[in-house]
Amino acid sequence: MAYNELRKDYLLNRWVVIATERSRRPTDFAKQKTEAAQGSICPLCVGNEHMTPPAVLLYLKQQNGEIKKGKDGDGTRPKNWLIRVIPNLYPAFIPPKETQNRSLRILEGENFGYAIGHHEVLVESPNHDEQPADASLPQLKHLINAYIDRLRELAAKPYVKYVSIFRNYGKEAGASLSHAHSQIITTPIIPRIVEEEMEASKNFYEQHKKCAFCDIIKKEAKGPRLILENTHFLVFAPYASTHPLEFWILPRKHDINMLNLTDAEVTAFAETLKITLKALKDVVNDPPYNYGFHLALDNAAKSYYHWHLEVYPKLAIWAGFEKNTGVYINTVKPETTAVELRKAITV
Amino acid sequence: MAYNELRKDYLLNRWVVIATERSRRPTDFAKQKTEAAQGSICPLCVGNEHMTPPAVLLYLKQQNGEIKKGKDGDGTRPKNWLIRVIPNLYPAFIPPKETQNRSLRILEGENFGYAIGHHEVLVESPNHDEQPADASLPQLKHLINAYIDRLRELAAKPYVKYVSIFRNYGKEAGASLSHAHSQIITTPIIPRIVEEEMEASKNFYEQHKKCAFCDIIKKEAKGPRLILENTHFLVFAPYASTHPLEFWILPRKHDINMLNLTDAEVTAFAETLKITLKALKDVVNDPPYNYGFHLALDNAAKSYYHWHLEVYPKLAIWAGFEKNTGVYINTVKPETTAVELRKAITV
Repeated sequence: MAYNELRKDYLLNRWVVIATERSRRPTDFAKQKTEAAQGSICPLCVGNEHMTPPAVLLYLKQQNGEIKKGKDGDGTRPKNWLIRVIPNLYPAFIPPKETQNRSLRILEGENFGYAIGHHEVLVESPNHDEQPADASLPQLKHLINAYIDRLRELAAKPYVKYVSIFRNYGKEAGASLSHAHSQIITTPIIPRIVEEEMEASKNFYEQHKKCAFCDIIKKEAKGPRLILENTHFLVFAPYASTHPLEFWILPRKHDINMLNLTDAEVTAFAETLKITLKALKDVVNDPPYNYGFHLALDNAAKSYYHWHLEVYPKLAIWAGFEKNTGVYINTVKPETTAVELRKAITV
Repeated sequence: MAYNELRKDYLLNRWVVIATERSRRPTDFAKQKTEAAQGSICPLCVGNEHMTPPAVLLYLKQQNGEIKKGKDGDGTRPKNWLIRVIPNLYPAFIPPKETQNRSLRILEGENFGYAIGHHEVLVESPNHDEQPADASLPQLKHLINAYIDRLRELAAKPYVKYVSIFRNYGKEAGASLSHAHSQIITTPIIPRIVEEEMEASKNFYEQHKKCAFCDIIKKEAKGPRLILENTHFLVFAPYASTHPLEFWILPRKHDINMLNLTDAEVTAFAETLKITLKALKDVVNDPPYNYGFHLALDNAAKSYYHWHLEVYPKLAIWAGFEKNTGVYINTVKPETTAVELRKAITV
């Protein structure tokens, strides 16, 4: 499989993967319009493991109820999995051959490189419809633990500069499969939004001698945008939300990523995620959404960066104005978002 | 009407208009789902002028075939218009009262201000379906001239820092009305994408003593991404296109905006726009799209900035990865886009 190209805009700090493996010709889009998605077989359901590449991580349910971690073998595809992580069949980022790892040059110029990395699908449950808002707490803990397991393994690779863990729910939010799943993409560059967060929080730290995110927690905990707080996490509608009903989950414990979460923190995160996504589902009639982790891999960022999760309900369309200016219009006040989600939680 | 708030992210250089006039409560989204758009009366069609605010610009057809420019009066709403520009009924940006113009403070802090400005709807034709790909050339020239007239008037206002002229075509691209129309929004800040283009092209100019965009024209004119060229304009698929089938129209004449276009250049631009949008329509079965002008108002940018139009077909969804990283995945090579659009033009 050939690498995809990584290209940078003439002027903007904006990288694009030209991922021609995922689609070929412009005329394919015309066909897509007429080919309605039929009620076909789900490749992520139990029993259809042969329809996907071999799993790189399995959580297997043992007869004693315990979980054993494993992978698919050459010929074996166990069916007793609770979590199944597989390489994306149409990856945007493609791993190097083992022999190339050392000598690999990714950026070949100022605005050209190769989209080297991993692109994985994390099947969140054997049950087709077990979305986080409705999932059992033990299953959601498996999901968070699987995120962490993959993050640990992928972050250790020399060509991985960032690990993006995200979830698309609903067709309008870009989910092409309806079976509950997340995705993981590793990039050989620090993505621009993360880079900008890093730089700004570093500047804030140098100026104020404290973490910008810890400061946000302190302020939002007392304010009108607070949605939920518990021992380990704070959920709030961010001050300048770009999406209606947007909310962020921030851990109280200052850390650059999730690798050091304790079991109690994983439990709390699973609960927090479930409660807030359920509230969103109830307030807006099960809307499509995207969520993504923001994190750092480099311990140099330890003092100033602080991982978190951003949840973007898909209730509006970024159109000509947003796409050409980078200024956003949000028709719901974050303070209203907080009121409505709080109400849905306490009921 | 109260001003909308302008809020900046905790860390990112990202402004959001909290436009609560446009929608009120999160639960409204739930209702929208069930209220299917009925075949109701089009407020932009001839005869329904009373359904909109009074026009701020009209191109009126005279009996001798000439065009007279005007506005709606208090009681009068002429019906013989070819172009009709009206304030948006649900504006994101709201103009100040005349008496406030001078003493106006827009930014009240580092991350707070007021969304002061104009938000207009430009009705492109009395004919409901006269989209640019199918419009008559004289009508398209009226459209371009009306863009320029509005740009001139709005740019002169002391509180206007930028004028965004854009078009959403198709429901999936954010058009809530199907009658052929564009929109104009003025912002009291320089939008971040424009600001970044400005800074980068300024740096390029200082380093190379030439305009970055003139340089792009020179390079793309000879390359595999060229779609169309004529005396006045060049159309190409940009090297790092973020959208499948994306193309840009660049004027050969170096200028910061369209205010100094000659009549011959307006004609050429109308032709270029029509031919390329028609090709897009033919290649992908009339897809939704957004386009937007990128321009500068400040003559200080004269040496290094160069206006242009960017056209983004809406054939993919920006999902969790794109929204959380700012890295884009494009499944069509710009070189393939160019081949297909060239073919559609020559046929």
